[in-house]
Amino acid sequence: MNEELFYANIDYQREKRRGVGEVIYGEGKTAEQITEIIKRLSAISDQPVFATRCSLDKFTLIHEQVPSASYYPQARIIAVGQMPEAVGNIAVVCAGTSDLPIAEEAAVTCELLGNMVTRIYDVGVSGLHRLLAKTDSLHKAEVIICIAGMEGALPSVVAGLVSAPVIAVPTSVGYGASFGGLAALLAMLTSCSAGVSVVNIDNGFGAAYTASVINRAIHSHRDF
Amino acid sequence: MNEELFYANIDYQREKRRGVGEVIYGEGKTAEQITEIIKRLSAISDQPVFATRCSLDKFTLIHEQVPSASYYPQARIIAVGQMPEAVGNIAVVCAGTSDLPIAEEAAVTCELLGNMVTRIYDVGVSGLHRLLAKTDSLHKAEVIICIAGMEGALPSVVAGLVSAPVIAVPTSVGYGASFGGLAALLAMLTSCSAGVSVVNIDNGFGAAYTASVINRAIHSHRDF
Amino acid sequence: MNEELFYANIDYQREKRRGVGEVIYGEGKTAEQITEIIKRLSAISDQPVFATRCSLDKFTLIHEQVPSASYYPQARIIAVGQMPEAVGNIAVVCAGTSDLPIAEEAAVTCELLGNMVTRIYDVGVSGLHRLLAKTDSLHKAEVIICIAGMEGALPSVVAGLVSAPVIAVPTSVGYGASFGGLAALLAMLTSCSAGVSVVNIDNGFGAAYTASVINRAIHSHRDF
Amino acid sequence: MNEELFYANIDYQREKRRGVGEVIYGEGKTAEQITEIIKRLSAISDQPVFATRCSLDKFTLIHEQVPSASYYPQARIIAVGQMPEAVGNIAVVCAGTSDLPIAEEAAVTCELLGNMVTRIYDVGVSGLHRLLAKTDSLHKAEVIICIAGMEGALPSVVAGLVSAPVIAVPTSVGYGASFGGLAALLAMLTSCSAGVSVVNIDNGFGAAYTASVINRAIHSHRDF
Amino acid sequence: MNEELFYANIDYQREKRRGVGEVIYGEGKTAEQITEIIKRLSAISDQPVFATRCSLDKFTLIHEQVPSASYYPQARIIAVGQMPEAVGNIAVVCAGTSDLPIAEEAAVTCELLGNMVTRIYDVGVSGLHRLLAKTDSLHKAEVIICIAGMEGALPSVVAGLVSAPVIAVPTSVGYGASFGGLAALLAMLTSCSAGVSVVNIDNGFGAAYTASVINRAIHSHRDF
Amino acid sequence: MNEELFYANIDYQREKRRGVGEVIYGEGKTAEQITEIIKRLSAISDQPVFATRCSLDKFTLIHEQVPSASYYPQARIIAVGQMPEAVGNIAVVCAGTSDLPIAEEAAVTCELLGNMVTRIYDVGVSGLHRLLAKTDSLHKAEVIICIAGMEGALPSVVAGLVSAPVIAVPTSVGYGASFGGLAALLAMLTSCSAGVSVVNIDNGFGAAYTASVINRAIHSHRDF
Amino acid sequence: MNEELFYANIDYQREKRRGVGEVIYGEGKTAEQITEIIKRLSAISDQPVFATRCSLDKFTLIHEQVPSASYYPQARIIAVGQMPEAVGNIAVVCAGTSDLPIAEEAAVTCELLGNMVTRIYDVGVSGLHRLLAKTDSLHKAEVIICIAGMEGALPSVVAGLVSAPVIAVPTSVGYGASFGGLAALLAMLTSCSAGVSVVNIDNGFGAAYTASVINRAIHSHRDF
Amino acid sequence: MNEELFYANIDYQREKRRGVGEVIYGEGKTAEQITEIIKRLSAISDQPVFATRCSLDKFTLIHEQVPSASYYPQARIIAVGQMPEAVGNIAVVCAGTSDLPIAEEAAVTCELLGNMVTRIYDVGVSGLHRLLAKTDSLHKAEVIICIAGMEGALPSVVAGLVSAPVIAVPTSVGYGASFGGLAALLAMLTSCSAGVSVVNIDNGFGAAYTASVINRAIHSHRDF
Repeated sequence: MNEELFYANIDYQREKRRGVGEVIYGEGKTAEQITEIIKRLSAISDQPVFATRCSLDKFTLIHEQVPSASYYPQARIIAVGQMPEAVGNIAVVCAGTSDLPIAEEAAVTCELLGNMVTRIYDVGVSGLHRLLAKTDSLHKAEVIICIAGMEGALPSVVAGLVSAPVIAVPTSVGYGASFGGLAALLAMLTSCSAGVSVVNIDNGFGAAYTASVINRAIHSHRDF
Repeated sequence: MNEELFYANIDYQREKRRGVGEVIYGEGKTAEQITEIIKRLSAISDQPVFATRCSLDKFTLIHEQVPSASYYPQARIIAVGQMPEAVGNIAVVCAGTSDLPIAEEAAVTCELLGNMVTRIYDVGVSGLHRLLAKTDSLHKAEVIICIAGMEGALPSVVAGLVSAPVIAVPTSVGYGASFGGLAALLAMLTSCSAGVSVVNIDNGFGAAYTASVINRAIHSHRDF
Repeated sequence: MNEELFYANIDYQREKRRGVGEVIYGEGKTAEQITEIIKRLSAISDQPVFATRCSLDKFTLIHEQVPSASYYPQARIIAVGQMPEAVGNIAVVCAGTSDLPIAEEAAVTCELLGNMVTRIYDVGVSGLHRLLAKTDSLHKAEVIICIAGMEGALPSVVAGLVSAPVIAVPTSVGYGASFGGLAALLAMLTSCSAGVSVVNIDNGFGAAYTASVINRAIHSHRDF
Repeated sequence: MNEELFYANIDYQREKRRGVGEVIYGEGKTAEQITEIIKRLSAISDQPVFATRCSLDKFTLIHEQVPSASYYPQARIIAVGQMPEAVGNIAVVCAGTSDLPIAEEAAVTCELLGNMVTRIYDVGVSGLHRLLAKTDSLHKAEVIICIAGMEGALPSVVAGLVSAPVIAVPTSVGYGASFGGLAALLAMLTSCSAGVSVVNIDNGFGAAYTASVINRAIHSHRDF
Repeated sequence: MNEELFYANIDYQREKRRGVGEVIYGEGKTAEQITEIIKRLSAISDQPVFATRCSLDKFTLIHEQVPSASYYPQARIIAVGQMPEAVGNIAVVCAGTSDLPIAEEAAVTCELLGNMVTRIYDVGVSGLHRLLAKTDSLHKAEVIICIAGMEGALPSVVAGLVSAPVIAVPTSVGYGASFGGLAALLAMLTSCSAGVSVVNIDNGFGAAYTASVINRAIHSHRDF
Repeated sequence: MNEELFYANIDYQREKRRGVGEVIYGEGKTAEQITEIIKRLSAISDQPVFATRCSLDKFTLIHEQVPSASYYPQARIIAVGQMPEAVGNIAVVCAGTSDLPIAEEAAVTCELLGNMVTRIYDVGVSGLHRLLAKTDSLHKAEVIICIAGMEGALPSVVAGLVSAPVIAVPTSVGYGASFGGLAALLAMLTSCSAGVSVVNIDNGFGAAYTASVINRAIHSHRDF
Repeated sequence: MNEELFYANIDYQREKRRGVGEVIYGEGKTAEQITEIIKRLSAISDQPVFATRCSLDKFTLIHEQVPSASYYPQARIIAVGQMPEAVGNIAVVCAGTSDLPIAEEAAVTCELLGNMVTRIYDVGVSGLHRLLAKTDSLHKAEVIICIAGMEGALPSVVAGLVSAPVIAVPTSVGYGASFGGLAALLAMLTSCSAGVSVVNIDNGFGAAYTASVINRAIHSHRDF
Repeated sequence: MNEELFYANIDYQREKRRGVGEVIYGEGKTAEQITEIIKRLSAISDQPVFATRCSLDKFTLIHEQVPSASYYPQARIIAVGQMPEAVGNIAVVCAGTSDLPIAEEAAVTCELLGNMVTRIYDVGVSGLHRLLAKTDSLHKAEVIICIAGMEGALPSVVAGLVSAPVIAVPTSVGYGASFGGLAALLAMLTSCSAGVSVVNIDNGFGAAYTASVINRAIHSHRDF
């Protein structure tokens, strides 16, 4: 059944059809709209319900209506419901300090979808020893999310070191010829390392979703 | 050990480090160079050695030197060594007749890397019934490679129907505002369906490589 | 006769020449300018006079001078004069919640130009069942306006299901590689479904105008 | 029923679903493939079967297998079956001599789909008197296809003169800053005249298809 | 002699070398800097000294220091010194109401440089009769500045009607596919009418400068 | 009277309306078409009739039909009729050897339109002394056409030295980041020197046409 | 040793490895973060520690915690530690007043890295005599940083006059077709003068860093 | 003295002014033109005279006229005169086999300009161990030229390891989203490693010229 609000046609069957319930994209929705959708989805879901790209201001308003909601400020995520048990190992790797909000959006999304996360931050290619010091952690990961702005070189280097799939996230960090993340996007798409696939600029959520699908597919086989 | 030719620094350790040996990108290499690299890699590898983006003319020259080489004309792939046993199920889905060369590059690469492949061709979104008729096959796939040129809408529709990860390949099929595949590339990157990640325009090989890494990770857990 | 203000050269003959009087594009005009043009056009027109892209603030100022003006907040349209009788059937279809302002600009414009409108909202291709559930409504439409941001795939899918002409409106909804609506625009222009024509990004008005011209041409023949 | 060739999944139900049978896009298909598809479609269709973007060389090969095929050299169209009776009035207007191939692709497609066509050629805006001399013909048209390369200004001027819908086709005619038709495409999308919708660069077929759908909808009402 | 401020290396010889003294580009300069440069230039020039792209706020501050300064609000120009005698006839033609600020920047600059100006405003190509009604004025002009945003078609049409040189100014008026004036710029550069040359987007000053150079060259010959 | 060929709607009134007869753009026209148009225009014109962008091969064919035609190989222009008397002084300045074909297209067009031409070639800004050695010639010119590829800096430097109007022609000379002349085009449009206006990439003809209109306007005043 | 903060992985070994310690990029970092990093770096470095792209507001906050910090307002640089002795001669040349902030970022960075700097400002190519008056200073420089917005012609002209290496910095100064510095960037990359290399738009720091490396390499040889 | 050919204005003073004589850019020049320029430059130069971007065919023709000319086939360089003594140490580093022609253009140019060259080839970042194995060679270099196509990540990694200046050359190697070298160019311009400056796509010569200027400046100090 598809229950319709005027402004949203909620996809209640999604959890059955795709294995994951609908996640709310908070950008451009009002606190009232998010509150309403959270309530409706919470009523039918066993998984945590959450919304990405939410400011602290929106959270404050929503929290009044949904006291059980919690907020992850760096990730800008509002979540309702208990964090699920974590399986597997997804490494979230990022190049620089400025990429942190996207990295946290990815990491927290992974956790909310039931995955174990290893954070490996600020290991940009300009100081390679910082990355190489983390080689062990990289090898242990079953899926790797690799986040970088500017020239976006990190996924090429990381993918060359490991056998796990690498999901690359270009960020809009940079100025001038980075053209809002275009430089990093093109670099990741033309990576000389096989095994890299790419999501939209700043799309930490999308990378986490794909990583979760892969990580959980691996473990559904292992665990049962 | 890294043995050096003047023109190539062969990465013999790759198979150990990344789980897959070096694959030869045939474009811009001469038949002589490809022949030489095939010989050196064959001498040390248990997996099939293969080269992508090779014309029939190049194959004819290489075949004289390497009689055991075989040629996949639609995929434009030259391969040496026995096709490995196939595990799992990767669906290769393409939108139109003109996308076939890239679809076959992906499908044959998957097979050479030891994966079972289901081909679902010419199911573009302009005649949705053709795609919906294949819903069962799509649900059975563990990884899906989705190939489309022009407006590149197919991955969004496919990803909305399944729970497996979808790797999207834009092709340069189209004219005018397709700008050599840019329209399809941007469409796939901005897909409204979560679970889609993207590789470079016409990069059937790259999609297959990533799909194989995922499919084999799932089955290494299941099988042992 | 063309009466000239300093800032505008009003086209009074337009209604005779093109069948529709001048519609005011409110963006970048002051409330005073809009008020003046509304007054002049209202004095000579039998059709409703209206202005698009008007904020609530502008409406408040204009309403003081033109008490008969009414406001459509989601469409951001100010209108003066009685809604005309509606003929035919234009379906306004949109992909997501964020496309609503453009969808309403299109729908209200259609209504002000004398067309019956069927609204089919939030039926993006990531959950195809939502769209397919509306197949009957789509088949009944004589003209279809199809609005989508992000990857802009909806018009291709819709046009494949129907025989009516489809006018596609890309929206600037999205981020990163959507490049302000460019991704959706290119996708719609390169649609693999024949029967799709495209207007400018966010141009709900333009799509409605064209749809109205077509719908009314069909019914001028039927009715007389 | 969808009968599958290896290279094409023919959409036999299209005529029923969309009112027009499948039209073959000849670019990138071999003469053999086109011949085979023509034969299969001809066997089930009452309408003419035709293929666009076909060179004279391809026609010569196809003609040997399908002697009833005829060729429209400027339009580059191969057609089989009798030209249907023509209804209504579609004006095909083009700016310059170099736009002729696209204009003829549009005009012949319109005719093959059963529409009366008025050709108004070489009436670019640099010599406005040439266009204004055709005002009567423009006013009589029920749908107008407007084709221009370079700065693509013609649709804006034409749409300002008439009440019929205008379908604009940018062409790749031009050099330098025309960037393969991009200048004309952007100009048409940003037209200051309402009532203009746009198809892909050089897409004479697509414009004709849309124009035919509209023209025939008008006349299905009138005639019955 | 070139007297140097820390922030500006004033070109006092310019009037001798190029026939026109230095004109101040106000954007990004503080009121203090503009005041200082105006004072220094006024001390050595017989022509009016003026600054373009100045807000009313800047004028208010400058006026306190330079009481003889006057302000042209639509043109956003501050001028000091008596308006020179006007020679010849430059027509400033613009397409729409929103192009007015650029049109006035051009017109006032022309006047400050000693040229007679004929203003022909809001004559966009969507209502051709408005432009054709001004044919006489256009024929009398010795140089024409033609200003348009959106699809930028006006210069092509105007140049086709006259024998005078046309200087085209694309404006950033528009949205979506106008890409900040790019659509108009490309259209003007690819104009099918010979005799059109183009300046930067929104560069009313630059067009006026060139028009003045041409107009005054014509009249220096006539007058002596 | 507008006599129509199937492929061209010749503008016989152009000479009266615009002061210059129609000039044939040879690119994309066959030798037969050019021959026919030359014959028709020659029959009614007192000025030379000419066609630009014509290969030597086309000339050879046309020459058989029009023995009085002559060919300017570097300019790639075919002309019929006596070279008119030359007035005034247009300097054609170019940056490098590779810009010569466009420079000659401009220079020969100027001459065919009745202007005196001074050629100043290979004076690119990388060796400024070469340009400065020509300062006298530059000062004597009444209009300057300035042609450059690569970074397109020449017009900015030249315009800074003179008081005559400068018409800048970017050329497609260059590689990589010159993007087919885009770098030079953008540079010329954003020139810091006032008095520069720009035509399309490689449009030597267009620059010459504009220069001629200006030069002749100056001299029509002087001479009578 | 790499000591990790949550938000930054400070590269303490950088001074040993690369000869220069880590420089803080202030954009997007909070005053608290910058303060903390300054403190940690100051504790281990003999060179001045500094942060670029810092507003006066940030400096005020940081100054409270680090009283020895000083601020260069035009350069927007905060520095701690004594200015080192200066060697060699780096000329910082800029085209216009608006390029000053980038020029000062470059000049102050050079000084903080121990280089003698000669400032040559506001010598744009539109008034060549201003540049030529500085020929002696240019010849004395051992490395030249050349900064320009708009058409970015200055490095081509300067490099043609000297034998020292020229590092070009495009700035985002300009409007319209400068596209945020793209015009200047492309111009500098396609310079016809050999010896020019380019850094990112507005990257005064990067140019200074490279210039310093070169200048100090020259002098490490000379001095010892 | 500047002796002029019709097609070239040879800059004989260049060697004195800039320290290096004119180098011939062979692209687009005929064998005859190159022969003539070689002869004239050889007559006045003590350094080798050479031409880049010359095919073997051109060399064969030139060799008949200039028997002392020799050819470097991979570099596509024709040179006349004795190779000068080599000083210093420039490392030419390239990412992949396909970048070899540009790498050799750079290396041979460096040698012809009197620099010692260390070639480090096929060390792309996808197999980092290949690059790290060359760390010693990299540390010994006084200037590094770093050449890469596709994602262009190599300069960022290399610059992070060394203290020498790095000159980055993007190549047009790649397909799809590499857009003819644009991806690599943007990546190099936005490098997170300080000390990288960039030349045009495929401009091996330009990088070598700059590297030579730097290397020789270092050694002119050391040696005297």
